[in-house]
Amino acid sequence: MNKISGNEQHPLFRQVCEYMTARIDRGEWRVHDKLPSVRLLAEELRIHRLTVFKAYQRLKEDGKVYVKDKSGYYVSPAAAPNGCGEEETALGYRMCNRLSDIQRMPVKYQFSQALIDPNLLPNLYLSDYVKEVFDRYPKVMGTYSGVEGDNELREFLSGHFRVSRLLQAEPEELLITSGAQQAINLIASIMLMPMDCVLVERPTYGVALDIFRQRGARLLTVDITPGGYDLEEIEKLMEQYRPRLFYINPTQHNPTGYTVPVWQRKRLVELAERYRCLIVEDDPFRDMYFAAEPPPPIFSYDTEGWVVYLGSFSKYVAPGLRICAVICRFPLMDKLIAAKFMADNGTPLLNQKIFLHYFTSPRLQGHLAKLRIALQVHKEIAERELAGTGCRWTAPQGGLNLWVNLPEHIPPETLFRKSMERSIAFVPGEICDPLGEMKSWIRLSYSFTPEDVLREGMGKLAELMRNL
Amino acid sequence: MNKISGNEQHPLFRQVCEYMTARIDRGEWRVHDKLPSVRLLAEELRIHRLTVFKAYQRLKEDGKVYVKDKSGYYVSPAAAPNGCGEEETALGYRMCNRLSDIQRMPVKYQFSQALIDPNLLPNLYLSDYVKEVFDRYPKVMGTYSGVEGDNELREFLSGHFRVSRLLQAEPEELLITSGAQQAINLIASIMLMPMDCVLVERPTYGVALDIFRQRGARLLTVDITPGGYDLEEIEKLMEQYRPRLFYINPTQHNPTGYTVPVWQRKRLVELAERYRCLIVEDDPFRDMYFAAEPPPPIFSYDTEGWVVYLGSFSKYVAPGLRICAVICRFPLMDKLIAAKFMADNGTPLLNQKIFLHYFTSPRLQGHLAKLRIALQVHKEIAERELAGTGCRWTAPQGGLNLWVNLPEHIPPETLFRKSMERSIAFVPGEICDPLGEMKSWIRLSYSFTPEDVLREGMGKLAELMRNL
Repeated sequence: MNKISGNEQHPLFRQVCEYMTARIDRGEWRVHDKLPSVRLLAEELRIHRLTVFKAYQRLKEDGKVYVKDKSGYYVSPAAAPNGCGEEETALGYRMCNRLSDIQRMPVKYQFSQALIDPNLLPNLYLSDYVKEVFDRYPKVMGTYSGVEGDNELREFLSGHFRVSRLLQAEPEELLITSGAQQAINLIASIMLMPMDCVLVERPTYGVALDIFRQRGARLLTVDITPGGYDLEEIEKLMEQYRPRLFYINPTQHNPTGYTVPVWQRKRLVELAERYRCLIVEDDPFRDMYFAAEPPPPIFSYDTEGWVVYLGSFSKYVAPGLRICAVICRFPLMDKLIAAKFMADNGTPLLNQKIFLHYFTSPRLQGHLAKLRIALQVHKEIAERELAGTGCRWTAPQGGLNLWVNLPEHIPPETLFRKSMERSIAFVPGEICDPLGEMKSWIRLSYSFTPEDVLREGMGKLAELMRNL
Repeated sequence: MNKISGNEQHPLFRQVCEYMTARIDRGEWRVHDKLPSVRLLAEELRIHRLTVFKAYQRLKEDGKVYVKDKSGYYVSPAAAPNGCGEEETALGYRMCNRLSDIQRMPVKYQFSQALIDPNLLPNLYLSDYVKEVFDRYPKVMGTYSGVEGDNELREFLSGHFRVSRLLQAEPEELLITSGAQQAINLIASIMLMPMDCVLVERPTYGVALDIFRQRGARLLTVDITPGGYDLEEIEKLMEQYRPRLFYINPTQHNPTGYTVPVWQRKRLVELAERYRCLIVEDDPFRDMYFAAEPPPPIFSYDTEGWVVYLGSFSKYVAPGLRICAVICRFPLMDKLIAAKFMADNGTPLLNQKIFLHYFTSPRLQGHLAKLRIALQVHKEIAERELAGTGCRWTAPQGGLNLWVNLPEHIPPETLFRKSMERSIAFVPGEICDPLGEMKSWIRLSYSFTPEDVLREGMGKLAELMRNL
């Protein structure tokens, strides 16, 4: 079932409440200031007056606004900045904070991190490359990079993507960002105004949701099932709500592991063009496939500039470097560069040079091949241990996670609590769900712990499940 | 003379034009959509209806909107996204682009870069520290930093600032950002809504202006003269316009070199508190003094949390690392961390660790002492060569620039063109001026070229001036 998130868990009037609370918190109005009238706010947000009326009623009930002169709404002292408004503005962080709280718990069996075991990464060799970078560019620390990224790196990646991913992009169509998260944030900053609609997968990467929410966006969701997307539903949502963006992770999807087939990729490009909805294609897991190489990115089927591609290397080359290549066409690229300029004036040159010299080495390809085998072995260990627990999942063809449906007799909260007691951490499904439901699902990352720890921990988790 | 920039060069109605063009460009309205009424927009922006009316008239004259049904304004096809709107959105980048265009010209005498000659930076030693970092933290590349920054670095800097700058701040009150520019952008993103007022110095750092403009802010200016600020004028502006921020570079100011005296620092804190205006204290040049150490930061006089301090190290430790420490109190820090989380999920750990290990070394202190002497020598060379040209400037007590007033007989544009012909680059004064005036001033950075090149280039510039 596809839903507009404004209908159920998080009704539209409540979003209006949050939006107004955030504006009050920003100091746009002070205590005892008159707020916009219902009609005026309804026009501004392009929503029905009754929705605004309902929102004001709720704000009144919550003591954040009061009524005077019969018709006017005013900021009440309880809603003053540094008061209750705080919670709304810091909301995004707090939500993720919950995830990062889980991830930072000093547990023995860390299955909540969709990262690769640092022992599987080529850390020991990297210092050699760093040394080499300093020999070749002795002044690398004394130099700023260009806003759009190091030219040598962009030229290399342009060629690399052409060969390995069938992406046709000139170096000028590449922008280097500090990780995919920065890229998503830059795109949101140039594309979204409050109350704009954004289409997202369900489940999906929680932090992207927080970024869109922080911009005041309304989230529309499309379910990912083992059968893939319902494209008719997507078209209906695009037609009805005209979302500005569709944020999608079509290849070895986090958390489900699903890969969108070629025919749907082509169709998505057509829909994007018809409904003028920019597809934001996040693709950090592509190289972590187990059997066949995944199909080319959605970007490769686009001729009209309705796809922006995020090629992040944080996951498997070096998370500490934070290197992502954003690919899109002009004039969008102009705007992205302007936003990147404002954001930090360019990703540090050192990080780009180290990445380039490591990534172009033959050692990396060997590393990648070994990494794929290691991840598959990890996945199989996890699946073997979980067999017979009543859990269901679709075996992923790549990526770092199992997306597991708990049997009905296991209460999710109890499982989480008792797992933590046994030093086992995982991600509760609702964190990946734009609607905050999916409590009967959990995300188990098999990539972060060494094999023996993984086997032991999954075994303990399975035992716990059987005993519940 | 202090001015609100909405009055002269850049009148308020024109800002409204730009604001509306930017919103149209963002796709908030499409071609033939009805725009908000004059009354509605005036209420939204809290400005006079006549100003909005004038803005709509101008947009009509420019063919961006048309009138229908007597009273309604509609988006005309000429104003469609990807059309003329582009220019407005990319404005910030283009403006800076002009500066970075100048800075990237392959000239022999590069006086437009307020950076330190890479030969004066300790590049050769840095690779040793990098090696050491890898020995101590072999997995540094495989690890994300916390959002707020590396704990070890924040603890060290908390102690360092306490001793060297009399700043009392707990490690939790420090956030590590990728350069001061990111910090300014994060602050702007949480503090500013369109049409908010921001107080800035005149002249000042052009890129900060672009960041504030990009958020739709109205700029108020306060002049820096050899006598300092007119505090009564500042109070009047704060009282009348209630600016949200005062962006200030009070120590070895860029471009003038001016340092605000202690009594004015104390008074500024009082004004900030009284008028609830957050002081953004940008302090990248503090350690580059020639004689006496400058007074403690404004932050050190604040007890109520109305100052946020930006301690950047890009200028003289390693520009390539992009390390800046932002210091402020809670709850502002909560919001900044949330914004940083959205922006890039934390500055790369590698950069923080390299910085820490280099900065804590005895070698750095030696480096700093030598650097100060070298900069003073550079300054004196520049001053000696410029003597007798009719130019006037106030000898700076630190920093990287001479802020030079051209004599009346030298036409600034001609000087710029003829300098470029002679492979000499400098920054025209209007780039540093929020009002875009100050054409008879130029910024000459004496820090970027080696001594002999500096002497030769300044000599050629002086000769050119004498012949004009």
